[in-house]
Amino acid sequence: MTPFKLTDELLAEIEQLIEEQQDSRLLSILEDVHYADVAEIANEIEEDQATYLIKLLDSDKTSDVLTELDDDVREAILKNLSSKEIAEELEELDTDDAADIVAELPKEIVQQVISEIEDRDHAEAIVDLLRYEENSAGGLMAKELVKVNENWNVLTCVKEMRTQAENVTRVHSIYVVDDQDILKGRLSLKDLLTTSTTAPIKDVYIPKVDSVNVNEKPEEVARIMSKYDLEAIPVVDEIGRLVGRITIDDIVDVIKEEAEKDYQLAAGISQDVEADDSILDLTRARLPWLFLGLIGGVGAAAIMGGFEEMISKHAILFFFTPLIAAMAGNVGVQSSAIIVQGLANDDLKGSISNRLVKEILLATLNGLVLALVLLFFTWFWKGNFPTALAISISLIAVIVVAGIIGTFTPLFLHKRGIDPAIATGPFITTSNDIFGILIYFWIAKLILGI
Amino acid sequence: MTPFKLTDELLAEIEQLIEEQQDSRLLSILEDVHYADVAEIANEIEEDQATYLIKLLDSDKTSDVLTELDDDVREAILKNLSSKEIAEELEELDTDDAADIVAELPKEIVQQVISEIEDRDHAEAIVDLLRYEENSAGGLMAKELVKVNENWNVLTCVKEMRTQAENVTRVHSIYVVDDQDILKGRLSLKDLLTTSTTAPIKDVYIPKVDSVNVNEKPEEVARIMSKYDLEAIPVVDEIGRLVGRITIDDIVDVIKEEAEKDYQLAAGISQDVEADDSILDLTRARLPWLFLGLIGGVGAAAIMGGFEEMISKHAILFFFTPLIAAMAGNVGVQSSAIIVQGLANDDLKGSISNRLVKEILLATLNGLVLALVLLFFTWFWKGNFPTALAISISLIAVIVVAGIIGTFTPLFLHKRGIDPAIATGPFITTSNDIFGILIYFWIAKLILGI
Repeated sequence: MTPFKLTDELLAEIEQLIEEQQDSRLLSILEDVHYADVAEIANEIEEDQATYLIKLLDSDKTSDVLTELDDDVREAILKNLSSKEIAEELEELDTDDAADIVAELPKEIVQQVISEIEDRDHAEAIVDLLRYEENSAGGLMAKELVKVNENWNVLTCVKEMRTQAENVTRVHSIYVVDDQDILKGRLSLKDLLTTSTTAPIKDVYIPKVDSVNVNEKPEEVARIMSKYDLEAIPVVDEIGRLVGRITIDDIVDVIKEEAEKDYQLAAGISQDVEADDSILDLTRARLPWLFLGLIGGVGAAAIMGGFEEMISKHAILFFFTPLIAAMAGNVGVQSSAIIVQGLANDDLKGSISNRLVKEILLATLNGLVLALVLLFFTWFWKGNFPTALAISISLIAVIVVAGIIGTFTPLFLHKRGIDPAIATGPFITTSNDIFGILIYFWIAKLILGI
Repeated sequence: MTPFKLTDELLAEIEQLIEEQQDSRLLSILEDVHYADVAEIANEIEEDQATYLIKLLDSDKTSDVLTELDDDVREAILKNLSSKEIAEELEELDTDDAADIVAELPKEIVQQVISEIEDRDHAEAIVDLLRYEENSAGGLMAKELVKVNENWNVLTCVKEMRTQAENVTRVHSIYVVDDQDILKGRLSLKDLLTTSTTAPIKDVYIPKVDSVNVNEKPEEVARIMSKYDLEAIPVVDEIGRLVGRITIDDIVDVIKEEAEKDYQLAAGISQDVEADDSILDLTRARLPWLFLGLIGGVGAAAIMGGFEEMISKHAILFFFTPLIAAMAGNVGVQSSAIIVQGLANDDLKGSISNRLVKEILLATLNGLVLALVLLFFTWFWKGNFPTALAISISLIAVIVVAGIIGTFTPLFLHKRGIDPAIATGPFITTSNDIFGILIYFWIAKLILGI
């Protein structure tokens, strides 16, 4: 496979062909292009050109293209499609993707679109899925799955399965339910390939099957599926009835989105933005954190203003404030990032007090090494040992306090049900800047006795 | 399913049962525990206790446990197993997992272990896999797959498949090859369920199949599989022969590791460490970046020392150095993080000069807003308009320069083949601290005319 690469030339050619309405040329170029790549093209061209493409191509391809588009491009295209055209796209999609698109439609056309869907079972499944909260297993799952009744025999089962499998892109597991639809176990396709066709289902199914509750958080579903290497997991309601199935491709998206969100939070970007978004969107994502930094900096300046009388005798103290602030920030981010990752991977063991002792030891060790280097540098530079000593001792104190704040802020947020990842970004840097500088001047004043 | 939760009580009970060698009690407790959870238990107890558990349990379970263990725990346990015992574990594993374990074994026992593997085909496949570089598609793939010859008919095919499927945990796709083992296409299991059994393979297979080259980087394999929603992808060698298969569960691990690495780099942690690692390991991961920060801070101090003559008339300039450093750092991290993500997702479009113009506009906009706030605060606080103006104008300049450095450092590193993610951490913060303070004092001096 030579991977598809969207070149400027290809893009220009497609744009021109659209302008000239050369439909057959367009169709022959795009025939062998994967829907994810068509989406990449549609994201790059003008909205009306993208709409033209969508209307031109077959709906079994364009429906998948729609699911891969950037949100704003999809919204613009859907606006230009009739209810009937949208319904045709939905018809081709798995119920989870269809429900996601319906959820984005303007309220006033939803009913019209749903009524245009010819396959009423499909429409019903989509409407069912709309009931579930987006940020839950129910919001992720699809209705498509293959299930058999434990009271059937293998012959009926295989016949039923063939019909059901028509609607299911990837079969993975065959779920076994009882007469009340309660999930009882599973059959693997492989078992079916290797088992005699005359056995009753009751005797051949595996009574153990992992499942998640419909209200489970997506991150928890992702954790379970990746821990247990599952490629699909059935979703059950409060009384254990099989209501849907989540597949690994959706979970890959959850994992990637989680990681991006954490990374962006750590970098001080508060919204999901990309490099190619507008300057206004980027500003909206970045400015709030910079404001926080500004407030922190102003706070630090105010603190230093309070120690102004020291400036005539110990100007050098003021030269090291960026160093102190940087160290407090770096140590804080390091310790909080480790805790945030531990929380995400669920591998934090042991008591809080042990963690406290450990972080203090660690910070003291790091602080000692760094302070020693700084001591010799400052002493050598300015020849004033007491000041150099004061700066170095303050540095140790600042690092220890920063480490403690960095460790406990995410733990505290996590306990309060707040995403601890926000603690790794400018939030921790800013508060540590202020605390750091306050501690620094306070200890220096104490040691130098001013 | 009630998810397994490793409690302190359970851990204590297991430790006691091991001490008392109550094998049957242990076996009955662990019988229904998933291997991933057994690994969690083994990670928490003493090494000799973990070894005891591994020797006690069946090798079809313990082999999977081994793959899930922390590296150091696995190494310790393998040291206590004989070559024959290790070979028995390898026998139960898929070839990719087995090869990973063999690659970690001390060189002097590898040959002995391999020779103890009874299934010679399995041993051969493992040895084959050892040839591939760890950080490549070849290093990720397994030899287990189901393949059929295009010249067979469906009857032969189904018979052959049944034999092959015995060794393959998840079938996914049936790959079609020619007499030279060149990958030609695929058959889906579903097609097989729904197709007549008398057709010749040549007529029913799908001649289009995504594949990756054996030398492809894991991140690129991950990108392809997640973009095209693939659950397995065949791996071909330089002349197109089918040599292995990568499944989505391995890719989930690659994605998670990539994300963790980027996150840790952004947080200034240079090695893969966890909160529960030793203080020494944690220090080794954290101290280098703190040293970098120390050097940056010392550099900033030296720069400020060069502007010492300003301190008597404009002490307030020195109060704002932590603010300037923080803003330079924050803006730098924000802009580099967006570029790093764009590079990772391969969605950076347009020319470098456009990007430059955009970042300058963005930084100027953000800078103006922030500088205006700062101007009024400083003016109000100290009543000195020229100084307030000098500080604010410097802030804009610092933000613009920081934005440019943050944008171009990752682009430059990426071009030179270096992971751009290292540009988001203390590296960018430190260099921006220094540049920021230099620019700040230089512009302030220019405006205030000292």
